[in-house]
Amino acid sequence: MNSGTTLIRGGWVIPMTDRVIYDQGSVWVKDGAIGGVFQKGETLPEAETVVDATGCVVMPGLVNTHCHSPMSLFRGLADDMPLASWLNDHIFPAEAAHINPETVRAGALLSCVEMLLSGTTTVCDGYFYEGAVAEAVREVGMRGVLAHGVIDFPAPGVPDPAENVARAIEFVEAWKDRWSLITPSIFCHTPYTCSEETLTKAKEACRRLGVLFQIHIAETEDEVLRLKEERGISPYQLLDDLHVLDEATLLVHNVWMNHDDMALIAKRGATASHNPGSNTKLASGLCPAAALMEKGIHVGLGTDGAASNNRLDLFGEMQLTAKIHKAYSLDPVAMDAWTVLEMATLLGAKAIGSGRYIGSLLPGKRADIILVDMNKPHLTPVHNPVSHLVYAATGSDVRDVFVEGRQVVKDRQLLTVDVQAVMNEVHRIAKAIK
Amino acid sequence: MNSGTTLIRGGWVIPMTDRVIYDQGSVWVKDGAIGGVFQKGETLPEAETVVDATGCVVMPGLVNTHCHSPMSLFRGLADDMPLASWLNDHIFPAEAAHINPETVRAGALLSCVEMLLSGTTTVCDGYFYEGAVAEAVREVGMRGVLAHGVIDFPAPGVPDPAENVARAIEFVEAWKDRWSLITPSIFCHTPYTCSEETLTKAKEACRRLGVLFQIHIAETEDEVLRLKEERGISPYQLLDDLHVLDEATLLVHNVWMNHDDMALIAKRGATASHNPGSNTKLASGLCPAAALMEKGIHVGLGTDGAASNNRLDLFGEMQLTAKIHKAYSLDPVAMDAWTVLEMATLLGAKAIGSGRYIGSLLPGKRADIILVDMNKPHLTPVHNPVSHLVYAATGSDVRDVFVEGRQVVKDRQLLTVDVQAVMNEVHRIAKAIK
Repeated sequence: MNSGTTLIRGGWVIPMTDRVIYDQGSVWVKDGAIGGVFQKGETLPEAETVVDATGCVVMPGLVNTHCHSPMSLFRGLADDMPLASWLNDHIFPAEAAHINPETVRAGALLSCVEMLLSGTTTVCDGYFYEGAVAEAVREVGMRGVLAHGVIDFPAPGVPDPAENVARAIEFVEAWKDRWSLITPSIFCHTPYTCSEETLTKAKEACRRLGVLFQIHIAETEDEVLRLKEERGISPYQLLDDLHVLDEATLLVHNVWMNHDDMALIAKRGATASHNPGSNTKLASGLCPAAALMEKGIHVGLGTDGAASNNRLDLFGEMQLTAKIHKAYSLDPVAMDAWTVLEMATLLGAKAIGSGRYIGSLLPGKRADIILVDMNKPHLTPVHNPVSHLVYAATGSDVRDVFVEGRQVVKDRQLLTVDVQAVMNEVHRIAKAIK
Repeated sequence: MNSGTTLIRGGWVIPMTDRVIYDQGSVWVKDGAIGGVFQKGETLPEAETVVDATGCVVMPGLVNTHCHSPMSLFRGLADDMPLASWLNDHIFPAEAAHINPETVRAGALLSCVEMLLSGTTTVCDGYFYEGAVAEAVREVGMRGVLAHGVIDFPAPGVPDPAENVARAIEFVEAWKDRWSLITPSIFCHTPYTCSEETLTKAKEACRRLGVLFQIHIAETEDEVLRLKEERGISPYQLLDDLHVLDEATLLVHNVWMNHDDMALIAKRGATASHNPGSNTKLASGLCPAAALMEKGIHVGLGTDGAASNNRLDLFGEMQLTAKIHKAYSLDPVAMDAWTVLEMATLLGAKAIGSGRYIGSLLPGKRADIILVDMNKPHLTPVHNPVSHLVYAATGSDVRDVFVEGRQVVKDRQLLTVDVQAVMNEVHRIAKAIK
């Protein structure tokens, strides 16, 4: 018997290393890493713990490339209204009145619980008081690329905008190499809410510290048109002029863009987060994700925060991606199931700078693994497990979850925190918000 | 104690009689009908059975206005391909080889199980061997408007097209007044696969028998353009010329239409089924459902069959409807949550000719009721239960289901049939299909 080993055996193993499915395959986990992937009939190594995956898909944990995890506090608070009213009349006032380290931690904990239970093992997050988010991520036992927010207005925890980049740097320094599952990062809000100086300073700090730079960009037509009128350039050209675009820059939303923008992103090696749930609900439009991927750009999927989606379920995001791109292009071959599954796993991992560690079941990578139970009426029969993952499953079908080899969800029960207590705490905070 | 009475107490009661939510309300059921809806503090009647709905939404069962329930046999068999290839290379050959009364019954049973477990209490269905579907619907204990298919080609169970209307009439006569939950109907496939004579004969039979006439219409641009070229009219004009459009005609899909078509439908009082999941996945386009409703047309939601969706979950359909119409119109106020919830309940009931019996918790209507459990991380906090039903819940959150006052789902367990046996039978059939 090997110490610290787990054998997950007998499922449809979808390693995402290639477009293959191993029927009745197995995955061996050793010391928190993928030890091996085995096909039916191969000799299996011994293991301390054996998990029967019969009737389940065994695949890499999903990667959520964009979230504001504390915003679950505002889930359903304001819907079906114009973006400006949603932000100015509801979300910003609620944030100003109710956001503090305790509420951030409570909201982040709720989001992490929701994400782990629905098969997301890694979240790329950005908010204020991000240290409190990091504490929540650590407590629940998931993986995170966690960014402190930077904006040139007074913000929660950063009353003086002159200190915004310094505060973000403090966060990165505090969490760098502190816990193996957490990678810090810096998130500049947008090219129109951050000055050129702020953007430059923040990116320079990211380069020096070796961390990911993130930014919302081209989410609405208005912001793109305004910059075009004022400066004659696109937001991507603006970032490039400031030397902000490189392989460690994650561009979030990317709805209003043209082929020159795409070519520029591809040339610089920057990556993209596609958030179809949020972009449709807020009527922002649709990111040309297929065209971006054709140019070799790594595009992952993101849920955005629960105030604008309203669910942090990447299965829902996959289904929406596969369907809405077909409807927009009137091409039923667009965004096939395999492509969408890659976006939710390996491409997402690459987009957030973690492709070497996660996103597939390649031996040596960290063992972030989920089991999706196909023994459900809505997933019967199983002509094609990949089709079911994208077109029929939801997060509620995830049975077991492992992060770095540690089982954190078993038979749909979270093993790391008391879920009812997490919900009760958010209910208590929500009463004050409403 | 009243015999045959149930009191569902203490939930967020959303009766859909108006846009109201009764916090800690209750619903009294007597003899299979809604006996009363009570607000917090009102004196409650006694009941034989009391169901604690604390933390749950209590609302009318959802109405699926379009399905081909046996097609769950082909779920995931063929995706991500052009409609013609999907139909001609995969679905039609699979139907020709594998469809018989036994497989129809097995597939329909699986779909009914899936629908009841996800809160759909009424299905409007159309297929061949529809008598076998009716047996399945009766066995599982749900409500159905069930139609025998009519097409001018040899079809399963109807080798001679000359007999297609006669066979459909036989089905209606066999199932009329046979069981309170089943209402028979006739489904003509499309205006281009049924001759004018067939359409006229079928509609005349529907009028004589007092049942709903259904038809797929304007699903693809191609079929509309072809008719325009050949005859200079739209498919709606064609139906109207044949006197097929009236208040007992349900038009399914309605993607490629103009304002003249809408005005004609409204004038005749015909109704519509909107199938966003199927229409996006097959890249057909988007039904202008908001414009139809503005003209007073009753528009319900439909899942279509599981071969083209691939899940029969009206919660997913609601979320897609609310989001995709916003994205298409770039209007974040389009298709608000209340409107979408009405489409999935009362408007759907009206669309299939059952508005007098179901679709809301109006006293006297049949007691088709579902409880949706909000005590879940992804439904926390509850600022607005209606928002959650549309934007965050899935069918997996449905806890209890009542049809005509009889409890058929309790704590997510189906009480009427052995779910594992139903799945096993479909797995057995699927092996032969693949």
